Amino acid sequence: MGWGDLGAFGEPSKETPNLDQMAAEGMLFLDFYTASPLCSPSRAALLTGRLPVRNGFYTTNGHARNAYTAQDVVGGIPDSELLLPELLKKAGYTNKIIGKWHLGHRPQFHPLRHGFDEWFGSPNCHFGPYDSRERPNIPVYRDWEMIGRYYEDFHIDLKTGEANLTQLYLQEALDFISKQQASQQPFFLYWAIDATHAPVYASKQFLGTSQRGLYGDAVREIDDSVGRIVKHLQKLGISENTFVFFTSDNGAALISAPTQGGSNGPFLCGKQTTFEGGMREPAIAWWPGHIPAGGVSHQLGSVMDLFSTSLSLAGLQPPSDRHIDGLDLSPVLLQGKLLDRPIFYYRGNELMAVRAGLYKAHYWTWSNSWEEHGKGIDFCPGQSVAGVTTHSQEEHTYLPLLFHLGRDPGEKYPLSFTSEEYLQAVEHISGLVQQHKATLVPGQPQLNVCDQAVMNWSPPGCEKLGKCLKAPESDPKKCSWPH
Amino acid sequence: MGWGDLGAFGEPSKETPNLDQMAAEGMLFLDFYTASPLCSPSRAALLTGRLPVRNGFYTTNGHARNAYTAQDVVGGIPDSELLLPELLKKAGYTNKIIGKWHLGHRPQFHPLRHGFDEWFGSPNCHFGPYDSRERPNIPVYRDWEMIGRYYEDFHIDLKTGEANLTQLYLQEALDFISKQQASQQPFFLYWAIDATHAPVYASKQFLGTSQRGLYGDAVREIDDSVGRIVKHLQKLGISENTFVFFTSDNGAALISAPTQGGSNGPFLCGKQTTFEGGMREPAIAWWPGHIPAGGVSHQLGSVMDLFSTSLSLAGLQPPSDRHIDGLDLSPVLLQGKLLDRPIFYYRGNELMAVRAGLYKAHYWTWSNSWEEHGKGIDFCPGQSVAGVTTHSQEEHTYLPLLFHLGRDPGEKYPLSFTSEEYLQAVEHISGLVQQHKATLVPGQPQLNVCDQAVMNWSPPGCEKLGKCLKAPESDPKKCSWPH
Repeated sequence: MGWGDLGAFGEPSKETPNLDQMAAEGMLFLDFYTASPLCSPSRAALLTGRLPVRNGFYTTNGHARNAYTAQDVVGGIPDSELLLPELLKKAGYTNKIIGKWHLGHRPQFHPLRHGFDEWFGSPNCHFGPYDSRERPNIPVYRDWEMIGRYYEDFHIDLKTGEANLTQLYLQEALDFISKQQASQQPFFLYWAIDATHAPVYASKQFLGTSQRGLYGDAVREIDDSVGRIVKHLQKLGISENTFVFFTSDNGAALISAPTQGGSNGPFLCGKQTTFEGGMREPAIAWWPGHIPAGGVSHQLGSVMDLFSTSLSLAGLQPPSDRHIDGLDLSPVLLQGKLLDRPIFYYRGNELMAVRAGLYKAHYWTWSNSWEEHGKGIDFCPGQSVAGVTTHSQEEHTYLPLLFHLGRDPGEKYPLSFTSEEYLQAVEHISGLVQQHKATLVPGQPQLNVCDQAVMNWSPPGCEKLGKCLKAPESDPKKCSWPH
Repeated sequence: MGWGDLGAFGEPSKETPNLDQMAAEGMLFLDFYTASPLCSPSRAALLTGRLPVRNGFYTTNGHARNAYTAQDVVGGIPDSELLLPELLKKAGYTNKIIGKWHLGHRPQFHPLRHGFDEWFGSPNCHFGPYDSRERPNIPVYRDWEMIGRYYEDFHIDLKTGEANLTQLYLQEALDFISKQQASQQPFFLYWAIDATHAPVYASKQFLGTSQRGLYGDAVREIDDSVGRIVKHLQKLGISENTFVFFTSDNGAALISAPTQGGSNGPFLCGKQTTFEGGMREPAIAWWPGHIPAGGVSHQLGSVMDLFSTSLSLAGLQPPSDRHIDGLDLSPVLLQGKLLDRPIFYYRGNELMAVRAGLYKAHYWTWSNSWEEHGKGIDFCPGQSVAGVTTHSQEEHTYLPLLFHLGRDPGEKYPLSFTSEEYLQAVEHISGLVQQHKATLVPGQPQLNVCDQAVMNWSPPGCEKLGKCLKAPESDPKKCSWPH
C-alpha cells in the first residue's frame, strides 16, 4: 500500500472511512518510512528493530539490488536475531502472526521458532497458481503445520479477483483478541495480511465497491477490517489498554497500475525504489486515552521504531548487545515530542539516500535497468526526472543530489551544488553517514543462494493432507535479482 | 492554488489547520473544477455562471490558447453579461470585491459598473515592478478610484518575498463583514486575493513559517486569514446565516516550482493545461447548521455552480434568456444529493476534454509547444505520459483518449480503444458533446486585441495622487498567446 492510498493522505476517492476515523482519533504520521522498498527486508526490520543490512535481509549478488524470500531462497531470519515477539514473551505476552511471514520458509525459520505462539498464514506471497511439478503452491499454515495451499485449498480467482482471505485473516484476529481478553492475557498481534499485493484480490462483498477498481476494493476491505478490529477492542473494553499501529511494508507497486497498483500521492516512483514513493508509508497510531485524538506528527519514523516502541510500552528494554536502529516513539506518541534522527534508505547493502530534517541526499540513484525497463517494467510510470530516475546506477557519493522535501516533496528539483544551503545540509548529512558507516557491521547476507530443492514441496503436515510433493535434487545457485 | 495544497487534500506538510477545520465542519468537494486553467476566464465564469466560450473570455488568435486580461488587452466583461452581484442586488445584497478583478481594466469593465458596490484591489495581477514608461505598474483601487500602485505604494519585496497585501485584504474583509452585520444588511463578499500567484509574497509574520518555502508561507497566510474570517462570522453570530465557499481559479502553476509553485497532488500537470492538475481545485463549503459537518462529496462541481447556488440560496432565479452552465448545488450541500452532469474542459474556444462520471475523454491533448518548452516553460515538470502530455496539438476527435479517473487519477493509462468499457463510455460522452455543441453560441471573443494605449496609464483618481502617466498612441494588434 502506498502513502497516497488512504483518504486521510489525500487519495481522491476518499474510500477509507475507518482508517481516516482511526487517524482522527489517534495520530497521523506524515513522515513515516519503511526500512526497505521491498517486503521481506522491510518485515525483517520491523520485527528486529534493525536495518536489513544488519539482520541479513539483503543480497550481495549484485549492486544495490532488492531481494526477498522467494520460494527458492535458501536463507531466512538468522537465529542470532532477536525478534519482537521473543522479547515480549518475557513480559508474558502471547504473540500471534496472521498473514504473510516472509522471513524464510525453511523449518529453522518458522515463526513459532522465533517467538510467535500462533500462526495463521503463509510463509511467502500468494503468487501462483503453480503446477506442483516446477513449483509448489504456497502453503497456508496453522501454527506448526500446513493446512492447505493457495489456489488449491484457499481459492484466489485471478479472473474475477475474488478471494476471501482477508476475511479469514480478520476472523482469526477477532477470535484471537477475544480469547486473550477472556483469559486476561496481554497479547501482540502482528496482522500481516497480504492484500493489497498483486495478484490483487478482495472478498465478494467488496468486489466492485470502489471507484478505484480491484485495488480499491482490496483497500476498502482492509479499511473495513481494521475498523472491525478497532471496534472489537472497544467492545471488549480493552481499547485503552491496546496500542494499535497501522502501516505498510513498502510503497505502492506502480508496475501493477492502474487496476492492481496503488497510489504514492505526490511522491516520486514506487515500490522497489528509494525515492519517497518507494519508502514513505501511510502510518496511524491509535490508543484512546493515551495518544491524544487528532494528532499529526512530522516525526521521522520507521517501521523499526515499532520494535523499540512496543518494547517500551511493554516495560521492556531493547537488547543491549547489538545495534538497534529503531527509536522508542512513546515520547512522540504520548507527549507530542519530536526526536532528531536520520532516515537511511537502503537498496540491498547500498546506502542509496539519507534524510535528515527536510533534506534528503541521494548517494546513488537508480530506478531499474534499461534492460528491465525495455521489458515494460516501470517503477516510475508517467514520471521522469532527468538525472534522478535513472536507468543506470548513478553514483553521487562525492556530490550528493540534494532535495528539500518540504518545498519539493516530489524530488524534482535538486538544489544547486554551489548554494550555501546545499553545502550546509550536505555537510550535516555527510557527518551522519560517516557515523553510520563507521559502526555498521553488516550481517551475513541471507538472500544470495537459491535452490529449487528448498521450495515449499513438503511443509510439515503435508502427509495428513496428502499434499507432500517431491523436491528436486539440491542444486544451489546464486539468486538472480534484476532490480 | 492547487488541489494538493491543503492538508485536507493530502499536502504532506499539512500546514492548513484552518481550512482543514473548515472542511471538518463543512463539506469537502473532491471533484470540483474550474472552467478554465487560467485566471481571467475562470473568474469570468464564476461571476457569470457561464463558460468562457459563452461569456467571451477567450481568444481566437490561435487554436486552443489560454488568454487573460493582460494590461494591454482591449476587451473585458461585456455589458450583456449578467454578473452574480448584479442579480444579488435585486435581493438587497451589498456586494464587495476584495482583490483581483481580472475581467478587464478599461472604464467600462470596472466592477462597480457590473454589480459590485465596493472594491478594494486591483484589475490585474501584481506583475512588476514596471518602469512607468514602457508599462505602468498595476493600480490598486478603492471603489471608483485608484489609491496607489503595486510596488510604488503597495510594496512587494521580490527579494525577500515580503508584502502585507493579504493582511490588507483580510482587514478589509473583516471590516466589511462587521459593517454589514451592524446594519443588518445581507452581503456578498468576493474575497479574490491574488496570493499565491507568482511573484509569490507573504506578510512578515508568515515568512519562513512553512516547511514549503515562500509558497507555503503564502498558503499559511491564506489559511490563517480564512480562519479569521470564519471566526469573525461566528463571533458576530451570523455564521448560520452565511454561506462560505473556498476554492481556487486554476491548478497550481508548476512552472514556478519549487519555491513559487504549489501542488496538484497526484494529478497530471498544472495551470494552463486541461489535465486534472490544471483544472481540479480544492473546494470546501461551510455553513454551520445547514451543511452537515464532515461531509465529503464526489459531486462533479464547477466554479460556475457558485453563481447558480448563490442565487438559489438568496431566493433568486438565474436569468432565463441565456444558457447558464452552473448548477444549483444546494441539494448537494443540504441533502447530500448527487447531480448527474458533465465537466467541459476548455482551452480557449476548443473543447479539449469532457468528464462524465469517472470517465474523462480527451479530444485534444497539448501541454505547450516544443518552442516554449525549449525555453524552459514546463507545465508538467517531472511528468511525461507518452501521447498525452504532448508538445504538439494532438487531435483525438474521432478516437478520444479515455481515462478512468477512479483507477487512474493521474491520467497515465488510456483505456484500450477496442474495449467494451471504452466503447460504452465514449458513446455516452460523445452524446453529451453533441448536445453541448449543438446549442453552443460562442460569445464575441474579448481577448483577441491588444493595445499598449489601454494599459493602466491614467486610472480614475490618478490626478489626485499625481500618478497619471502618458499613454502611447493607440496601436491595436492581435494579442500573442503562446500557450
